[in-house]
Amino acid sequence: MDTLNVSLGERSYPIHIGRGLIGDASLLKTVITARQVLVVTNEIVAPLYLETVEQGLAADQQRTLILPDGEDQKTLATFARIIDELIAQGFHRDACLVALGGGVIGDLGGFAAACYQRGIDFVQVPTTLLAQVDSSVGGKTAVNHPRAKNMIGAFHQPICVLADTDTLASLPPRELSAGLAEVIKYGLILDEGFFRWLEQHMEELLTLDAPALGFAIRRSCELKAQIVAEDERDHGRRALLNLGHTFGHALEALGDYGQWLHGEAVAIGIHLACATSEALGWIGADDASRVESLLRRARLPVGAENVDADRLLALMSLDKKADAGGLKLVLLEGIGKAVVVPAPEPSVLREVIGTKLAA
Amino acid sequence: MDTLNVSLGERSYPIHIGRGLIGDASLLKTVITARQVLVVTNEIVAPLYLETVEQGLAADQQRTLILPDGEDQKTLATFARIIDELIAQGFHRDACLVALGGGVIGDLGGFAAACYQRGIDFVQVPTTLLAQVDSSVGGKTAVNHPRAKNMIGAFHQPICVLADTDTLASLPPRELSAGLAEVIKYGLILDEGFFRWLEQHMEELLTLDAPALGFAIRRSCELKAQIVAEDERDHGRRALLNLGHTFGHALEALGDYGQWLHGEAVAIGIHLACATSEALGWIGADDASRVESLLRRARLPVGAENVDADRLLALMSLDKKADAGGLKLVLLEGIGKAVVVPAPEPSVLREVIGTKLAA
Repeated sequence: MDTLNVSLGERSYPIHIGRGLIGDASLLKTVITARQVLVVTNEIVAPLYLETVEQGLAADQQRTLILPDGEDQKTLATFARIIDELIAQGFHRDACLVALGGGVIGDLGGFAAACYQRGIDFVQVPTTLLAQVDSSVGGKTAVNHPRAKNMIGAFHQPICVLADTDTLASLPPRELSAGLAEVIKYGLILDEGFFRWLEQHMEELLTLDAPALGFAIRRSCELKAQIVAEDERDHGRRALLNLGHTFGHALEALGDYGQWLHGEAVAIGIHLACATSEALGWIGADDASRVESLLRRARLPVGAENVDADRLLALMSLDKKADAGGLKLVLLEGIGKAVVVPAPEPSVLREVIGTKLAA
Repeated sequence: MDTLNVSLGERSYPIHIGRGLIGDASLLKTVITARQVLVVTNEIVAPLYLETVEQGLAADQQRTLILPDGEDQKTLATFARIIDELIAQGFHRDACLVALGGGVIGDLGGFAAACYQRGIDFVQVPTTLLAQVDSSVGGKTAVNHPRAKNMIGAFHQPICVLADTDTLASLPPRELSAGLAEVIKYGLILDEGFFRWLEQHMEELLTLDAPALGFAIRRSCELKAQIVAEDERDHGRRALLNLGHTFGHALEALGDYGQWLHGEAVAIGIHLACATSEALGWIGADDASRVESLLRRARLPVGAENVDADRLLALMSLDKKADAGGLKLVLLEGIGKAVVVPAPEPSVLREVIGTKLAA
């Protein structure tokens, strides 16, 4: 087991990464000491891992809430269902909520933990690659608004994250690839060496080679944790993590959150961000094609059909990163070097979207 | 104008107290610099002060949401209405929400500001005495759950509080008294000198003498700010502020939040806390009767008819201050000296409730 500490003062917490962690009852008992525990999971994950987790817990009062699967559960209504359950069980402020599942469960469970009695303890047990490398670091929790993603939420750090790499064996290949989009993103924004390592080890990751997965997850979490430690509340540098996300969120909204997995939309978004960087002359065609090639090797989409550029741009302008100063974008000055800049003229973006999406 | 600084590191903020503050356009423009401003208020307060506030603002995009009056608006549904409005107007993360009204508007507006895009700026303009001395300090925001008060919320500090004492002239006498319950509470838990001052100046407060009101508000905010600075997240000392509140919240729930104003329920709760302290031999009958007398002089209730002691105790056990170690209560060791202790035996509480409520 590998352990990474996320340094956030009194809100610091460990991320344990390794094989078979959720079956390690002594680890679970050490990490989750609350006497009242609610496990929030979904109907896909529950049959696979719930019993194992429950056996490892030692709470006096232990309950489980099994939600339907899917991004369309990330609503205020499902948030209210979790709160109702906590209240129905008479859970106190020293209770602990365990989120067992992917990003949707983590975001939802985390937001409920953030708001129940103004904040209770929260342990993340991410079972997808995307959740292990992304939502488990940084404390962002949220639900979606019908008109935009993650609009209602809170910063609430977990007290611990257990990233059991064995759970990735049950992941559909499409979701594994979606997680790799975020892994590639970390190399692109911060660490050319890691990007190069990914170019060399992509096949091992796709075949779930345990040491390779462990390294990629640890390095991704480390890079994200560095940025979060510098800018916990997302007022500056943390925006770098949004490479590909402004395009991506708009694509997800355009597809009613059903067409693309988040990671797939981010992959297309990264491709568009590279193309924009190239159109502005910030990176060369060679770098843009290195990125496109790695995304394709990770079995990720880089294009989308029938996208109305104007509708996409309108949705992008609602992005949380936009402020009174207008829309901002994360672009590349090179592989491993991202910058946050005011978005270029709509005509530039329209041209990039028009030529690259259909390519 | 008197200004008190609440010291919370990077979340510090000023409370301005004085006459005619909301009519001071230059003050408003200095304090609220956001280019997008949503004023949340209610249908009682809007006709009185909304126009004045709106004239003082200088935002590019300025909207108002007027909610119905009443504690029954403190729900997730109304919270969602505020979020819908922020989204409909395309408000960004650098927008500001102004809560113009009493505690309900402050708690609701504050919670919406806490969660919209994971937190936007928030200015409180409290127009009731209760809100000026209580909800404006400490950053607690929340909505109620049908089964218990303030169960869903966040800590979110305002960037500024404007306590305009002139607004108290429009307050119904019953609400003025309800605010005085919290003022009396501060003296009781922390400052015997202030309690004595209240004994000497109660009539001036009831007749809205401006210097007396200004002093009482400032001293109350100061005492609360001291405690909040020591324990922002309410894990220890801050529990002292709940003198009378565990009884009070249960009484409110018993009356479906319609029978008692919050401050009235707190007054009855303070009376019960004193009686419990007296029953345990911690304070003498003389102190208990000094408290009862001051509450009565503030035109506050100290008893209630037809209260089922067992139902009240059951509701109290759901209190947020309860944890795995059981229910805790704030009791008095003397006037100006409160302590947080495990609740005494139910038989003691049942006896106190039985004899004191009907008295």
